[in-house]
Amino acid sequence: MIVVMRVGSTETEIDGVLKRLKELGFKGSLSRGEERTVVGVVGQVYPELADELAVLPGVADVVRVSRPYKLASREFKPDDTVVRVGGVAIGGGNTVMMAGQCSVDTEEQVMATARLVKEAGAHILRGGAFKPRTNPYAFRGLGEKGLQILAAARDETGLPIISEVMDPRDVELVTRYADILQIGSRNMQNFSLLDEVGRCGKPVMLKRGMWAPLQEWLLAAEYILAEGNDQVILCERGIRTFETDTRFTMDLSVIPLAKRLSHLPIIGDPSHATGRWYLVEPMAMASVAAGADGLMVEVHPNPDHALSDGAQSLTFDNFRQLMDRVGEVARAVGRPLAPVS
Amino acid sequence: MIVVMRVGSTETEIDGVLKRLKELGFKGSLSRGEERTVVGVVGQVYPELADELAVLPGVADVVRVSRPYKLASREFKPDDTVVRVGGVAIGGGNTVMMAGQCSVDTEEQVMATARLVKEAGAHILRGGAFKPRTNPYAFRGLGEKGLQILAAARDETGLPIISEVMDPRDVELVTRYADILQIGSRNMQNFSLLDEVGRCGKPVMLKRGMWAPLQEWLLAAEYILAEGNDQVILCERGIRTFETDTRFTMDLSVIPLAKRLSHLPIIGDPSHATGRWYLVEPMAMASVAAGADGLMVEVHPNPDHALSDGAQSLTFDNFRQLMDRVGEVARAVGRPLAPVS
Amino acid sequence: MIVVMRVGSTETEIDGVLKRLKELGFKGSLSRGEERTVVGVVGQVYPELADELAVLPGVADVVRVSRPYKLASREFKPDDTVVRVGGVAIGGGNTVMMAGQCSVDTEEQVMATARLVKEAGAHILRGGAFKPRTNPYAFRGLGEKGLQILAAARDETGLPIISEVMDPRDVELVTRYADILQIGSRNMQNFSLLDEVGRCGKPVMLKRGMWAPLQEWLLAAEYILAEGNDQVILCERGIRTFETDTRFTMDLSVIPLAKRLSHLPIIGDPSHATGRWYLVEPMAMASVAAGADGLMVEVHPNPDHALSDGAQSLTFDNFRQLMDRVGEVARAVGRPLAPVS
Amino acid sequence: MIVVMRVGSTETEIDGVLKRLKELGFKGSLSRGEERTVVGVVGQVYPELADELAVLPGVADVVRVSRPYKLASREFKPDDTVVRVGGVAIGGGNTVMMAGQCSVDTEEQVMATARLVKEAGAHILRGGAFKPRTNPYAFRGLGEKGLQILAAARDETGLPIISEVMDPRDVELVTRYADILQIGSRNMQNFSLLDEVGRCGKPVMLKRGMWAPLQEWLLAAEYILAEGNDQVILCERGIRTFETDTRFTMDLSVIPLAKRLSHLPIIGDPSHATGRWYLVEPMAMASVAAGADGLMVEVHPNPDHALSDGAQSLTFDNFRQLMDRVGEVARAVGRPLAPVS
Repeated sequence: MIVVMRVGSTETEIDGVLKRLKELGFKGSLSRGEERTVVGVVGQVYPELADELAVLPGVADVVRVSRPYKLASREFKPDDTVVRVGGVAIGGGNTVMMAGQCSVDTEEQVMATARLVKEAGAHILRGGAFKPRTNPYAFRGLGEKGLQILAAARDETGLPIISEVMDPRDVELVTRYADILQIGSRNMQNFSLLDEVGRCGKPVMLKRGMWAPLQEWLLAAEYILAEGNDQVILCERGIRTFETDTRFTMDLSVIPLAKRLSHLPIIGDPSHATGRWYLVEPMAMASVAAGADGLMVEVHPNPDHALSDGAQSLTFDNFRQLMDRVGEVARAVGRPLAPVS
Repeated sequence: MIVVMRVGSTETEIDGVLKRLKELGFKGSLSRGEERTVVGVVGQVYPELADELAVLPGVADVVRVSRPYKLASREFKPDDTVVRVGGVAIGGGNTVMMAGQCSVDTEEQVMATARLVKEAGAHILRGGAFKPRTNPYAFRGLGEKGLQILAAARDETGLPIISEVMDPRDVELVTRYADILQIGSRNMQNFSLLDEVGRCGKPVMLKRGMWAPLQEWLLAAEYILAEGNDQVILCERGIRTFETDTRFTMDLSVIPLAKRLSHLPIIGDPSHATGRWYLVEPMAMASVAAGADGLMVEVHPNPDHALSDGAQSLTFDNFRQLMDRVGEVARAVGRPLAPVS
Repeated sequence: MIVVMRVGSTETEIDGVLKRLKELGFKGSLSRGEERTVVGVVGQVYPELADELAVLPGVADVVRVSRPYKLASREFKPDDTVVRVGGVAIGGGNTVMMAGQCSVDTEEQVMATARLVKEAGAHILRGGAFKPRTNPYAFRGLGEKGLQILAAARDETGLPIISEVMDPRDVELVTRYADILQIGSRNMQNFSLLDEVGRCGKPVMLKRGMWAPLQEWLLAAEYILAEGNDQVILCERGIRTFETDTRFTMDLSVIPLAKRLSHLPIIGDPSHATGRWYLVEPMAMASVAAGADGLMVEVHPNPDHALSDGAQSLTFDNFRQLMDRVGEVARAVGRPLAPVS
Repeated sequence: MIVVMRVGSTETEIDGVLKRLKELGFKGSLSRGEERTVVGVVGQVYPELADELAVLPGVADVVRVSRPYKLASREFKPDDTVVRVGGVAIGGGNTVMMAGQCSVDTEEQVMATARLVKEAGAHILRGGAFKPRTNPYAFRGLGEKGLQILAAARDETGLPIISEVMDPRDVELVTRYADILQIGSRNMQNFSLLDEVGRCGKPVMLKRGMWAPLQEWLLAAEYILAEGNDQVILCERGIRTFETDTRFTMDLSVIPLAKRLSHLPIIGDPSHATGRWYLVEPMAMASVAAGADGLMVEVHPNPDHALSDGAQSLTFDNFRQLMDRVGEVARAVGRPLAPVS
């Protein structure tokens, strides 16, 4: 962080800045230019510091020069983090497929879905037992019963399972069943929840807040890492923009950018990002071409009702085709689909 | 496009819509429901048509969907909700001032702030005991100790207190101390927390998510209302846009719009919305002119260090001047500052 | 602009930056801190320069410390610019009202509107002879005939007129008739048009692009000022965000911020910003409370059809009431409505 | 909410919609138009319902408005538009590469760039003779001299050329030299310019406004088409969002969506969208995987100064590698690079 003094700032003002920095536990490094004086801030800065310094007399501007996260940064850890779940390595150079229905309903449907996504080559089974819903009157998930169904599907198919946790009080419960805990977009800055999953001992997939610049997202990951959990996976699921013809706007440039700035693996979720089943396949392919370590895709649980539900869910036929086409792109970019056991 | 007539619209009004559609070259297809009459528009419509039809007599809306919230809607409850805390009525026609420091630090500073904002005419004391911080290494608040300090300040000054709760496990604790519980922007869709404060028996101030259209905000309020808590206050605190010269973009049009669609009172928070102390006064005045039922403003706790901290905090002198100027606007718009006890 | 070198950058890299700056016509001012070296850039910088420097070897970041506009800045010209049109002073401490119908249709309607807005206390008559329409099949305005109608209304009422110009080939024509030329939001970065109105010799009102941060807006004003036209008025008319319950999001904090950074007067346009007639009055009042030098408001041309058209237009009764209520706020904030001749 | 059935939907499909609505607790109100059948939904609907209904057999859309463009729509023209320039077909099933420097400077550099991009397999040479600059003091291009240099490069290499036009008065001039006229993002709703290029008789590439939803973009294309020019190419170049770590946010989902709603070919411009040279290659690959008909990429004109200019420009080595990697993705998705003559 650098404090830029106004043209013509006085010695008293410059001293004021240095004194204040000292009070706050930082060291100020003074640089006098011909036109302006600037003060470099040495120490572990935080975003709010810029505002605290900006109001000091004589200060023209405060600019950030280093990123405020540490454990999540590639400078701190140059090598890619690889998260291993069952026999699958996420971030290890292959493309990993997570698939399944959005929310767990009946055991029969979950089992059918699990068998079919496995057959099509998926590596991890997704399914929601706790569902965030914007509307309080909508179905909110089966809770523990849902987790038991998922566990049964894992037992039969061997697919590791990923499931969302929304409440810090449920972390222990979800940890007991799931192989990966998912933090949803709306909870990206639910700091109590982040702390709790930071202590759970299982990998965590952190979805991007629909309002979050990359820097805030990596700071949220930092919460989990700072509690000692280094098994964090990022997941891009779309941000909010003025475009209303898709549910969100999937920001694919964040994929190569996150990989440049951070060592954490990153997954694309084209189902939630677009909210349109016919955009899932092209955006899945594009995510992989942009450098994603894997995909999370919604598949419809009931093959008999395939066409009758779920604007963002694929039928099994659609999913098989997606696996083929994504597989071709994955090979073309040198990150083929992960082997299946 | 469908034109939704008001409940109880007259035959003359319905005919007016059909006639206007004909004039514009469209065909209207009438459907009489049990409750409402709707008119489907047949022809090559254009976006502005919705607006042109919306102003016809008897027309409730021109939409693709009736709004998904119910308890929060003015249709459901035509009269303004008035939240009473201590002797103060929020939403009852006067302008209510909440002021105080952002986070509670020492008892001495909180007491000094409490005395001074009371003296200046504020009605409610704000202060954070649990602080959401984007950075895991920043100070996160004093917890229960902070609540005790706030309670002591209430005892001395008589000002009711408002404080944030971030974790469903802390709701019972915060409820024990605070007069109003605050849900922060980042937790607007933390549904477990909304459920919990819906059962706490105290008024709740729900800040708008920085990514949330009005409809999602009112649906979040619906969560609290649906649990039986009808003492909900909305608070506009800025949304995320491309403009980077302010911390967020304060959306003042949401104030008259929320009051039109909902019966809940609404507060403006210019301190967090702008992140710039010199924008707080004009945006406070503008909020009141736009129809806000009150304001929440950050005041710096330490009068000796007035200039040296808090890009968004006012000094006591600034705050006294803001009270004067807001008072003048409040009188001009017929919603004078609430009386002080 | 400041070039921040990486920790541990070499002398060769630092020399490379200084050399490149020299090639580009700038002077580099070197400051060596304990941890980092930074290079200040002296000269009239432009935004793209940051990117050109960012890729040099050894550079960690390039940060802007001074704003890239000059003539538009308050540093360059500390005193408020006052634009005088007829007997009206825009930016001189009073609140100025511009009102009229959106697009000019018949002479009869324009005359009726002109008489009535004058009677209600408006100072300037607005009306579009050239209309920007998102849809090529919509009515695009009467052209010169429309300007003649507006001029006739000015002759009768004495109200100066403001009208939009969209094409550099029409600047000479519009200049012949209008007292103020308006540049619409969609043309804020139509640089050929900005150049042309910079040479027209009449005041220009420059609407904010719906995508434009304040800095780009002031740079667009700089285009006009740089051609020698110092009679520029800014107009906030809403920016594009994710909120769909209003047509745009009116950014009122840009009003006090623009007045802090620039000497140019600024007008609020709540009609286009909200697109909802029932939000025009509260947002007009809020604009004045936020510090606007005046308002531009759409009034419906046909008092007989008042309710049947124009989602964002006021009836004459609505407009009279708005004038009363705005007048009260304007007095309360010390910038009463400008006197009428 | 209304369900719009496809033109020619069967009785079985209509019954299916009514039955599904009943299952979901709604009542369907049928309206048979001359062209289409629509079903009004009666009951307390919720946002997700639109998506749930949209996938039913025979359903065209669930909307409040049929789309306001016509000539640009796929309904109007089901077959893909193929734009032929020289021997190159844009939109014909192959991937087309446009490359070159951002703005034309010296003949020597343009020639060198032209030879090298041709050698690397590019199909079309880009170069700006008229440059839109946010800053009035920045270099604005060579004008006709620049066009002559580009034409000379075409003569030598055989590459067709694309160049931007910003002023309706220059359309005739640019048409004389360029093979494709480019309309820049900031001019997407410069309606005078759109009209003029609609009459120029040459293909036009229309970049997306950084504020424009797809619908407004297609309406802008409609302006050109409505003047009789059916050779329109779309180009996605990023939209404005809150993310500041990239210059804009490239919206790749608009590519498959535009191809679904429109018959026009679409190009991706990762250079301007990201503003970061190291994101150009991954976003180029992702654009092709998402279904783009081609790419426009900035290449640095001076191989000796490769690293010293242009945050978004590639060196020749970077460009050759990009061609290889894009070629692999293009083959994998079945739209290989267009043959070179």
